[in-house]
Amino acid sequence: MSRGQTPRPATSAIKPRAPRADAARNRARIIKAARTLFEAQGADVEIDEVARRAGVGVGTIYRQFPNKDALIQGVLWSHVQPLVDAGHAKADAADPAAAFYEHLAFLAESFMSKEKVHLAVVRAGLAAAKRIPQNDAMAQSLETLLARAQAAGAVRTDISAVDLIMLIRSTLFPSYGGVVPKRVRRRLFDVVIRGLRP
Amino acid sequence: MSRGQTPRPATSAIKPRAPRADAARNRARIIKAARTLFEAQGADVEIDEVARRAGVGVGTIYRQFPNKDALIQGVLWSHVQPLVDAGHAKADAADPAAAFYEHLAFLAESFMSKEKVHLAVVRAGLAAAKRIPQNDAMAQSLETLLARAQAAGAVRTDISAVDLIMLIRSTLFPSYGGVVPKRVRRRLFDVVIRGLRP
Repeated sequence: MSRGQTPRPATSAIKPRAPRADAARNRARIIKAARTLFEAQGADVEIDEVARRAGVGVGTIYRQFPNKDALIQGVLWSHVQPLVDAGHAKADAADPAAAFYEHLAFLAESFMSKEKVHLAVVRAGLAAAKRIPQNDAMAQSLETLLARAQAAGAVRTDISAVDLIMLIRSTLFPSYGGVVPKRVRRRLFDVVIRGLRP
Repeated sequence: MSRGQTPRPATSAIKPRAPRADAARNRARIIKAARTLFEAQGADVEIDEVARRAGVGVGTIYRQFPNKDALIQGVLWSHVQPLVDAGHAKADAADPAAAFYEHLAFLAESFMSKEKVHLAVVRAGLAAAKRIPQNDAMAQSLETLLARAQAAGAVRTDISAVDLIMLIRSTLFPSYGGVVPKRVRRRLFDVVIRGLRP
């Protein structure tokens, strides 16, 4: 139903739009614009440009995201959250080994298809020289999957979920520098996958 | 023999010290000073500080290294060259499989023992987004070792020497960020080593 054609109760018609709903709508619009720019050009995005593309004022952005880093974090989370959710969703799969290895392959392909985003996570981690929350959330979502696959004898037991995220990210964004073709990265990833077997 | 006590031919006594020998001596002194500072504090070394520690003037440094990047490259090479030489030296070892895996373990321990230096190589590669000569030289020195180990059936045949350097560096300097304990990095490295078996 489009808003214009729907009769609304009189009380709602005279009330201003709920500020919280407005804020959520603006937030989604800002993230979407920032994501598009981010994917095209990496984290060197101008707030002005995001505002223009989102159709909001710069002030609206700053009300939601106190600084550019907060906006970047928002964009990163918008990418990472679905991967985290997917991990949790497979936690009680019937075949733990298959679920585990399929999820790793899914993560690998997602990382590679959003190159700039995930390279930004990699660079943020290297620059900050500390663990970053997106990686921790992803590791957490892997924990049950990993424990079940280990219990099923499909994965060596000395490996942790944090190890896994390090191995996957490092292999897919090799710190060798240079543009590494996907075909090569899949090969490196395969070495890791085979090395995970007990 | 110490120079002061050794009788020297008259011709040599009146000749000024050969400029080329002087330059080489200064170069070695500068590299040594820069290495020490570099290992202590990473690539954020001031040329002034290097000059003070080396006991030479800033001008002498600039005559040898036109800019700071050239000095950093010199330091990196002073670390990487022995690793490259070690690879070439093992090229005709009697047991190709053992030589290969021992050399990888040697590289891994060297990388970890010179953390700041090798992290600088990693960061340089990521920042430049291109392959860097130190890694290429190391890959080259692995080629014979790898080919022989593959011919002996000890390493999967779809892996190249460049792949190996990427895998080792990436695993030992995981792009997860944060200080990763050596014990964990050895575990990640072991995953890669096992994944290399055919």
